Amino acid sequence: MDIKAYMQSVGRAARESSQVLARSGSVIKNNALMAIADSLDKSRSNLLAANAIDMDNGRNNGLDAALLDRLELNDERISAMIEGLRQVAELKDPVGEITDMGYRPSGIQLGQMRVPLGVIGIIYESRPNVTIDAASLCLKSGNATILRGGSEAIQSNQAIAACITSGLLSVGLPETAVQVINTTDRAAVGELITMSAFVDVIVPRGGKSLIERISAEARVPVIKHLDGNCHVYIDDHADIKKAIAIADNAKTHRYGVCNAMESLLIAESVAAEVLPELSKIYTAKEVEMRGCEKSRAIVDSMVKASEQDWSEEYLAPVLSIKIVSGIDEAIDHINRYSSQHTESIVTEDFNRGRRFIAQVDSSSVMINASTRFADGFEYGLGAEIGISTDKIHARGPVGLEGLTSQKWVVFGDGQIRQ
Amino acid sequence: MDIKAYMQSVGRAARESSQVLARSGSVIKNNALMAIADSLDKSRSNLLAANAIDMDNGRNNGLDAALLDRLELNDERISAMIEGLRQVAELKDPVGEITDMGYRPSGIQLGQMRVPLGVIGIIYESRPNVTIDAASLCLKSGNATILRGGSEAIQSNQAIAACITSGLLSVGLPETAVQVINTTDRAAVGELITMSAFVDVIVPRGGKSLIERISAEARVPVIKHLDGNCHVYIDDHADIKKAIAIADNAKTHRYGVCNAMESLLIAESVAAEVLPELSKIYTAKEVEMRGCEKSRAIVDSMVKASEQDWSEEYLAPVLSIKIVSGIDEAIDHINRYSSQHTESIVTEDFNRGRRFIAQVDSSSVMINASTRFADGFEYGLGAEIGISTDKIHARGPVGLEGLTSQKWVVFGDGQIRQ
Repeated sequence: MDIKAYMQSVGRAARESSQVLARSGSVIKNNALMAIADSLDKSRSNLLAANAIDMDNGRNNGLDAALLDRLELNDERISAMIEGLRQVAELKDPVGEITDMGYRPSGIQLGQMRVPLGVIGIIYESRPNVTIDAASLCLKSGNATILRGGSEAIQSNQAIAACITSGLLSVGLPETAVQVINTTDRAAVGELITMSAFVDVIVPRGGKSLIERISAEARVPVIKHLDGNCHVYIDDHADIKKAIAIADNAKTHRYGVCNAMESLLIAESVAAEVLPELSKIYTAKEVEMRGCEKSRAIVDSMVKASEQDWSEEYLAPVLSIKIVSGIDEAIDHINRYSSQHTESIVTEDFNRGRRFIAQVDSSSVMINASTRFADGFEYGLGAEIGISTDKIHARGPVGLEGLTSQKWVVFGDGQIRQ
Repeated sequence: MDIKAYMQSVGRAARESSQVLARSGSVIKNNALMAIADSLDKSRSNLLAANAIDMDNGRNNGLDAALLDRLELNDERISAMIEGLRQVAELKDPVGEITDMGYRPSGIQLGQMRVPLGVIGIIYESRPNVTIDAASLCLKSGNATILRGGSEAIQSNQAIAACITSGLLSVGLPETAVQVINTTDRAAVGELITMSAFVDVIVPRGGKSLIERISAEARVPVIKHLDGNCHVYIDDHADIKKAIAIADNAKTHRYGVCNAMESLLIAESVAAEVLPELSKIYTAKEVEMRGCEKSRAIVDSMVKASEQDWSEEYLAPVLSIKIVSGIDEAIDHINRYSSQHTESIVTEDFNRGRRFIAQVDSSSVMINASTRFADGFEYGLGAEIGISTDKIHARGPVGLEGLTSQKWVVFGDGQIRQ
């Protein structure tokens, strides 16, 4: 198989169908989403059979239990994909919205219209449900999609692809509006991320090493999500009850998520009051605490934190803890060690909150709220294609709007430039 | 000189001063702009002397007249730089604006705050005034800047850099907020566009070959402007007077600009009426017409257009002309050959206009207006760092807002995730 020729033909077809999608109204896009949902519902046995092959191969290839769990499809997970499609169909279509329309001194009327980006390439690992999540968001936002899943999920992804194709065709959209790469050859990824004539943006979803590799090699813009080393800072002027609730929730609500707190900063003046209480909670929940010298002087059971701990995204019941002199040291520490995902200050002081919001350079900055709120659903985006830790284009949770661009529209009645 | 070490130290200093700039309010940034203007005004003789060296070297190295013209500084051009600084100082500061603030069902209050991108690298050719244009827009939007001008302008740029430094220091901002690279070694560019830890975005300003080379090699996002192959389509339902005025203005108002019309499409039903009149105008203004067969049947003095002509950005008194069957062929032609810069339809028909706006995939789409309006000043951006032909981040004229990003801000009173 000539991978380059195959990917070029996939790319060319995607570019062509992107023009059809850009012209398609909300009704036809929503009908397609519902038709894909129906097709998935009717193909449950096919999907489970295809997934069983992937699971067998996975076990034979020695995939670990966590990966196998992510790979597995069952009736409940298929229902969740169907429900996801219905939810995306209900979201407001961002395409075509014109904003800031107004007259210029020349007499022209100027505004900005929201339009699809064009062709979006998604590269992801084991979980087959990403095929539906990503395809539905791209379709709703009027973009053609090229999906490249993990080799371990190839049978499942092809079975899902068949449902997508059938749904698209049933409403008269081109089947190439969503294409799932049918080879596990890694050269296909190399082509996908470099064919800038056909692909407008790449969204990698997976582990840090996947994302770093793709970012390093891509010739197409990448909307990427690296780590989430999130901080909570408990200020001198914190309400202690709120501080404890937030520091507990941000760390222990879920461990393996990017918006979990990984590092806790506490103002020296309140540390003796707040740290013993928090330590009890963390100890009861079996969270390993790694502290600075001052923290360990208050809670002596704490492990000593190394320099590396301040940069670490544990994604686990582990927390680094540092006592700081106050808000200045907290902001400096965060801007130095944070991955610029999400940070929160707990304070009752107006000026402290205002400074934290202005000076912390992260995609979400919060006052008196758990970092766990940094999420597409909680932010009302409906769903997210990912959380961007970049500053260009989209920052933080990326929903439908992040998959669009704006063009300028000018209405005149014969204006010429003087 | 160790170029890599030098550029790393420049990058690190820029990253550090970007944090100071991000915290600096409008007053201090505007004071810096005015102080730089004053410093330029006081240094006129230095600037002219430095430029005289560049001009001498340029003549000795055989630079052509056009390049020497772009390289030259004189009192009028220095005054224009000073005036430019004053205009940027008067623009509204985009940083800190919070939009779409509202409550979510969880009780958190969510909005988006506009923030600087961080560090911006500008790579440009001969014209020394770009040093001031670019530095002033980046400074106003709270970004640190690394400027790399052409080797032919090194003396002029260093003299301008001294004025910038003096202006920054006089208001207490770090001198590394704006750095002008002091080596002509091309390896410096290679470092600048790959040090993603220190540079957030690259804006190349110059010829197509410079921009293509930088885009191909960059590891940092690039806001780029490639060609402007702009179209005017005169529809069956055009007002003929408006059509002629617009087609004349779009082509002949200025030839060497990216928003000039390079290709004219005319609906078959009005071609016999409109083309002879336009031909008279173009002939009088010595514009070379290159037409399709049908155009040449109406105006037989026309040169025959080649396939290549439909993609060409002439930047000269040359125009390709094609007669099309109607709006469908016009839209297809544009979406195929255009560089997605600016296109305009001339029509009195509501539905035709509406379709053109929706279906033409370019950064500016217009009804009954000259393509020459696609410009930062005409759009009210005040000034532009460039015109982006990309879809990611910024599309079309890029002003202060295009040099910023938005972060999410969350205000709560102790909310935790359930």
